[in-house]
Amino acid sequence: MDEIKKLRKANPVVLNIANMVTPQHVADAINFIGASPIMFNDKREAKDLVNISDALVINLGSNSKVTIDQAIFAGKEANHKKIPIVLDPVAIAASKLRQDNFKYINDNIKINVLRGNAGEIAFIAGVEWDAKGIDAGNGKGSLQSIAEKAARKLNAIVVLSGPSDIVTDGETTYEIDNGNHFFALNVGCGDMLDGIIGAFMGIESSISSVVMATKLFSIVGEIAAAKINEPYMFLGSFFDNLYKVSDQEVAKKEKVKLMKN
Amino acid sequence: MDEIKKLRKANPVVLNIANMVTPQHVADAINFIGASPIMFNDKREAKDLVNISDALVINLGSNSKVTIDQAIFAGKEANHKKIPIVLDPVAIAASKLRQDNFKYINDNIKINVLRGNAGEIAFIAGVEWDAKGIDAGNGKGSLQSIAEKAARKLNAIVVLSGPSDIVTDGETTYEIDNGNHFFALNVGCGDMLDGIIGAFMGIESSISSVVMATKLFSIVGEIAAAKINEPYMFLGSFFDNLYKVSDQEVAKKEKVKLMKN
Amino acid sequence: MDEIKKLRKANPVVLNIANMVTPQHVADAINFIGASPIMFNDKREAKDLVNISDALVINLGSNSKVTIDQAIFAGKEANHKKIPIVLDPVAIAASKLRQDNFKYINDNIKINVLRGNAGEIAFIAGVEWDAKGIDAGNGKGSLQSIAEKAARKLNAIVVLSGPSDIVTDGETTYEIDNGNHFFALNVGCGDMLDGIIGAFMGIESSISSVVMATKLFSIVGEIAAAKINEPYMFLGSFFDNLYKVSDQEVAKKEKVKLMKN
Repeated sequence: MDEIKKLRKANPVVLNIANMVTPQHVADAINFIGASPIMFNDKREAKDLVNISDALVINLGSNSKVTIDQAIFAGKEANHKKIPIVLDPVAIAASKLRQDNFKYINDNIKINVLRGNAGEIAFIAGVEWDAKGIDAGNGKGSLQSIAEKAARKLNAIVVLSGPSDIVTDGETTYEIDNGNHFFALNVGCGDMLDGIIGAFMGIESSISSVVMATKLFSIVGEIAAAKINEPYMFLGSFFDNLYKVSDQEVAKKEKVKLMKN
Repeated sequence: MDEIKKLRKANPVVLNIANMVTPQHVADAINFIGASPIMFNDKREAKDLVNISDALVINLGSNSKVTIDQAIFAGKEANHKKIPIVLDPVAIAASKLRQDNFKYINDNIKINVLRGNAGEIAFIAGVEWDAKGIDAGNGKGSLQSIAEKAARKLNAIVVLSGPSDIVTDGETTYEIDNGNHFFALNVGCGDMLDGIIGAFMGIESSISSVVMATKLFSIVGEIAAAKINEPYMFLGSFFDNLYKVSDQEVAKKEKVKLMKN
Repeated sequence: MDEIKKLRKANPVVLNIANMVTPQHVADAINFIGASPIMFNDKREAKDLVNISDALVINLGSNSKVTIDQAIFAGKEANHKKIPIVLDPVAIAASKLRQDNFKYINDNIKINVLRGNAGEIAFIAGVEWDAKGIDAGNGKGSLQSIAEKAARKLNAIVVLSGPSDIVTDGETTYEIDNGNHFFALNVGCGDMLDGIIGAFMGIESSISSVVMATKLFSIVGEIAAAKINEPYMFLGSFFDNLYKVSDQEVAKKEKVKLMKN
């Protein structure tokens, strides 16, 4: 308990390899929860920046060689310094290049948290899914078993985002029934959640940090939508409530079920 | 009729070669009308991404060799697959590089829709214009004849954005008298319109798709400004109304004149 | 007096070498005060774009070789054309690369205005400071003497942003006591101020232009927070009031002290 309070006091630094679409929202989300964001775009400063950071977040929406090299450099340094890494395999089903980049990163650095939608996590788990490459899509198989399969395959904590979120390390699995459907309309909400997971992982690298970040994110979405019931403008209230939300509020509203232990 | 309803049901994928300033707004606009955006930044995935897309939008605000190569790769593939291409010649009058890049693209790929302000379209039509390179500017010659000249030169549909918008393929010309002056204050509204034109072209490649996208955009601007009469904050309402607007509302508010047929 | 009115009439063009996080906000800020922004990302068009610009703003949040080359090209051209340059040494204490890039730029081009937070300006002044590299941080020494030291070292006007802002050319020093603590929460407010300083410097290259831009920025923050007392949503009101603010309002609210002359 008091994890948000603790985070705000510690003010962890979250280093980001961002995509080219959503970095402003991601930086704001990290800032408003009470952490500090850095973005960078040259591998030559990876070592120095990892050195002052508490977590590394890698977003694979940008797929140039430069970005992937940067991810490898920063990732190896983060592994070496035992700084947790969050990876988002954006639209991995959409291109061979994204799949090659993911494999290259996963072969060379140890990922602590993998976060994606059903289509992305199913692809990594090796489960058939119909997702046009970029959306969550539909498919067979329970989301829980898909997330657990991916977690065991990568030996990492997996967050499968959707109407309900699954958080699992393959052994212990939680389902989080909080949230709001406006998230799916605003490009970059997944990327923002990655940043917030990074912030909590920067305090303590554990599945409970990931559950905390995920439920907090969804609950702030509920609070915001209750104030501004408009799909885009709710986002303003989301940031403001990210800044204000307390551990008590999260405890009161959380709908977390332990599915497997 | 029922073009918006049809688009929302089909959920076309719009592939974007974006500039470095406005991609968040562009992705949001595409999402809120009911299509799905993808941005990418490496030519190696052009083929795979075109393959799952219904339209390609190229924004020439970014002028590096890497971006232009990417545009050529994706553009050729889109031509091959008969996927419509929307091109925005951002600030073409401002530099020789932008002019060379435009020529290189236009020489190598077939453009379906060209969208710009008066200064940009006049430059392409070869009409003298005083625009400091980056603004709409002022000049001689009717906007209609400039747009028609550019359309015939490129053998494409041209959208000339301004207080009134002109849409023409050189033979048939429409003037759209909807809109709101707040658009000109918010950087990237033209880029957002490019994305929405792409979405409708992804359903059907025709001048009526372009007219639909253009009038819809302007009408949603009117609806938003009527709700929030502040130049920046109106944009929040713009996105929310993009999500809600119906074919009936557009039909009721449209001020489209057939100028030439 | 009437400096805002004058700026709006002249509509100066501000050329930006932006970072990858905040360019949308920066472009909007420049537009809403009444100037025109251009961003670019290829050195080959530096000369043409400087040629139509009234000021150049270089943000060192992006540290790739490509960006730094671009800054050198555009900076030399701006020096040659006597167009003022604003430089923001983002998080300079965070990496050797940022320090090398700053030195390379400062050795090769003449900077007119340097803007940063206490940690950044202290680093350049050579004063010890505890800033984790990316935040304002804490340290010994009066902010005034740090800013003056940096100004003398670079022979430039320095803006040290903080709860109070210091503006100095090393000889004459002002303290501006306007502002709002919400600025520190929104990523990119410093970058936005850089752009507005560029706009006023584009009208007249002088310390009073920098004081004007800095106090105006802070005062609009006060006006916005009085209307929307929420840390994120206040930003919408900030842009709207940037568009509306008058010279009279600024004159009425300003709290500028001459500290040294």
